[in-house]
Amino acid sequence: MKKIAVALMFLISVIAVRAQEADSTMLKYFYSEALSDQEAYKNLEYLCTKIGGRLCGSPQAAAALEWARQVMQSMKLDTVYSQELYVHHWERGEKETASMASKVFGSKTVNICALGESIATPTDGISAEVVEIKNMDQLKKLGKKMLAGKIVFFNKEMDNQYYNTFEAYGDAVGQRFHGASEAAKYGAVGVIVRSLSLEGEDYPHTGIMHYDTSITKIPAVAISTDDADLLSSWLKSDYELIFHFETHCEFFPEAESYNLIGEIKGSEKPNEIITVGGHIDSWDIGPGAHDDGIGCIQTLEVARLFKELKIQPKHTLRFVMFMDEESAQRGGKKYAALMLTNKEKHIAAIESDEGGFTPTGFTIQSSADTVKMIEKWKDLFLPYGVYNFKKGWSGVDIYYMEGSGFPLIGLMTDSQRYFDYQHSEADTFDKVNKRELQLGSATMASLIYLIDKNGFSK
Amino acid sequence: MKKIAVALMFLISVIAVRAQEADSTMLKYFYSEALSDQEAYKNLEYLCTKIGGRLCGSPQAAAALEWARQVMQSMKLDTVYSQELYVHHWERGEKETASMASKVFGSKTVNICALGESIATPTDGISAEVVEIKNMDQLKKLGKKMLAGKIVFFNKEMDNQYYNTFEAYGDAVGQRFHGASEAAKYGAVGVIVRSLSLEGEDYPHTGIMHYDTSITKIPAVAISTDDADLLSSWLKSDYELIFHFETHCEFFPEAESYNLIGEIKGSEKPNEIITVGGHIDSWDIGPGAHDDGIGCIQTLEVARLFKELKIQPKHTLRFVMFMDEESAQRGGKKYAALMLTNKEKHIAAIESDEGGFTPTGFTIQSSADTVKMIEKWKDLFLPYGVYNFKKGWSGVDIYYMEGSGFPLIGLMTDSQRYFDYQHSEADTFDKVNKRELQLGSATMASLIYLIDKNGFSK
Repeated sequence: MKKIAVALMFLISVIAVRAQEADSTMLKYFYSEALSDQEAYKNLEYLCTKIGGRLCGSPQAAAALEWARQVMQSMKLDTVYSQELYVHHWERGEKETASMASKVFGSKTVNICALGESIATPTDGISAEVVEIKNMDQLKKLGKKMLAGKIVFFNKEMDNQYYNTFEAYGDAVGQRFHGASEAAKYGAVGVIVRSLSLEGEDYPHTGIMHYDTSITKIPAVAISTDDADLLSSWLKSDYELIFHFETHCEFFPEAESYNLIGEIKGSEKPNEIITVGGHIDSWDIGPGAHDDGIGCIQTLEVARLFKELKIQPKHTLRFVMFMDEESAQRGGKKYAALMLTNKEKHIAAIESDEGGFTPTGFTIQSSADTVKMIEKWKDLFLPYGVYNFKKGWSGVDIYYMEGSGFPLIGLMTDSQRYFDYQHSEADTFDKVNKRELQLGSATMASLIYLIDKNGFSK
Repeated sequence: MKKIAVALMFLISVIAVRAQEADSTMLKYFYSEALSDQEAYKNLEYLCTKIGGRLCGSPQAAAALEWARQVMQSMKLDTVYSQELYVHHWERGEKETASMASKVFGSKTVNICALGESIATPTDGISAEVVEIKNMDQLKKLGKKMLAGKIVFFNKEMDNQYYNTFEAYGDAVGQRFHGASEAAKYGAVGVIVRSLSLEGEDYPHTGIMHYDTSITKIPAVAISTDDADLLSSWLKSDYELIFHFETHCEFFPEAESYNLIGEIKGSEKPNEIITVGGHIDSWDIGPGAHDDGIGCIQTLEVARLFKELKIQPKHTLRFVMFMDEESAQRGGKKYAALMLTNKEKHIAAIESDEGGFTPTGFTIQSSADTVKMIEKWKDLFLPYGVYNFKKGWSGVDIYYMEGSGFPLIGLMTDSQRYFDYQHSEADTFDKVNKRELQLGSATMASLIYLIDKNGFSK
């Protein structure tokens, strides 16, 4: 009996080693195929240079969906379909203008842009003195007496001491999102927010902002980090300087749009779903290469890799171009709602929305047990620089499926350069390195392969 | 007795935890200080834009040494001195020209540059038919009959399927180094070598080549990858096309130069040395930002970090600007020779020469035991993305100290973008990201701190 047990143990260990070798070989195929491909990078170039910025509700957003549909159809996915929804339709209008005038320093034009979903200024703009603050607490201390009739200048810098720049973003993004509402409480007439970037730059970064229902809406703009530094230095000697800005943005009735979905049907469990996605919308002032053109390209590339390598998944793989991550997340919400309505069974979802930089790991939104199960595959990924498997936030679009009992996974990338580009005119095709992009594609494909093949067994 | 043993064990474990915490805090200081610094990046800008390419033997190489001396002196290092040596003095001369003429396709100018230390063409250039080959074995098969009087076109591509691009470089660099000597054996009159890059580009990459003593020297040039592809496609239909090129390079008598060294003297063991360095020379056709401006900047930055954070090392820290990595490694050889002559005791040497990209680990040239000892510190580095501790090649300049009984360590970085720039006009300041550069500085400073404090105890 003991001999049989020993033989059995040996057999099991041999099988385990063989399985590990087979998985390792398969990962090599994914990475080799992705790294030697030219198509994905060309697709990104098309999306960025022929379509460009694609704010939800815009013709460009519709063009991007139609383009992605054609790419999916050309890959002969088993099915390609839409999930209809309505999105905000806000337009920036004519390019914003701004200047500052000081009796001490003279006058200077300033590079600004309206924050996403801000109201416009009156036709002749807003002119007022400026009060610079570094954090929200200062607003209360200054009060109506000091702030009424003024422009509040939120100038908190992103903290460059963080290794992970998303943490620095998390610390500073509040002034962009809540700044206008908080300043309006004290009678301010407008808001200037320092661009969320770790570099000195002459161009501004936009991004979504929000009005509380209880306040009078006031216009909000982002100012380039260089001009923020200059404004701050002028204010030190001349607190009476006058800042003037004009914005022309406008809300229109909600627009029809959709999430676009392609599927490879599972051979054994077609009703069990693995989702992989990115968001197809971007801000309007740049072509959204890293945010999140690359997430869409990588999603399409995962599909291509499975097709090209003739891998038939057991479960259904769903490739999703989510609409409207930047404004109201209607796409993510719709996708999660339909999952419930249609009583779909999902086993995992993966999103890429941290830029097309070298992938370093996965952030896994799930139980600690599931994180451990995924971490078992770490040795397979180490040859490709993917070493970091940790519990954490997944992605804005898939987040709405939280609590449904399956892991939500974010592709983690090297974040050093991300905020040089995010939400700005600098988020262009040439800022994406083909190899870095494709390492992300292969990393996602590999994890999906392992989940599809092995599930989450202990 | 048992109680005492248990108490002692507890005490030791508490001390160990405290020591780990103290080290962790110190690493945080290094990374925070490096990431919030502006000076190192400005220094790199100066080196790249005010001095530029600095081939050994050139006035620019001398200027770079003098600049580095002034930076060291401004930091008030304990001593700054030179190690005199002689270097090759080869000059490119007037910009190279090339064209190809085909009865089928017409004529086209082609972007080439002479390989480092090649001889020049005759004044009116070389014109000949072209034989394309992919590997050295083909030369022998073709033989004198097919190759005499021809230009051999080495067109082996770097293999983009490697994750680590240095492996792809290792596979392909032979054609650049040995190509001319091998082709000359069969009577070829010149050599064109495909640039060592993974991308399609319109500019060539130079690099050192070598003539065997037994052969007739023939001129060798690099061709841009785009033009290599075009030439190859033309040759498929027209093997009689004529390639013409003119180069103007020239050798001069050897020039005086030196390694530049700055030191912080050790407080406890001033005669035991930890070396950190990069090479100050670069190729001439670009400003050598990644290769190896960043290695020099990071070396200087390690010194600044120790000074700024007021850390007094126990051992002497030596900051070395090695001369002549690109040609004959006279700097590395001299440094190693003087170590022996002067009977110096060294305990470790670290080099940065893989580009200023996000650091990912260390390659350690030492016994497996020493690798393990260094790997003990891995958990301290993981928060900064440094996860890969492995036995391997260290760096060209410190390599000559091999076998002296102490570890030689190379800073490993994310290699995806390195060969887009190396040895080309594209290796410019703007290709270096400030944060990525400074993560490298902090990573080297941290390892040096741990070695200085703890040595290599088991």
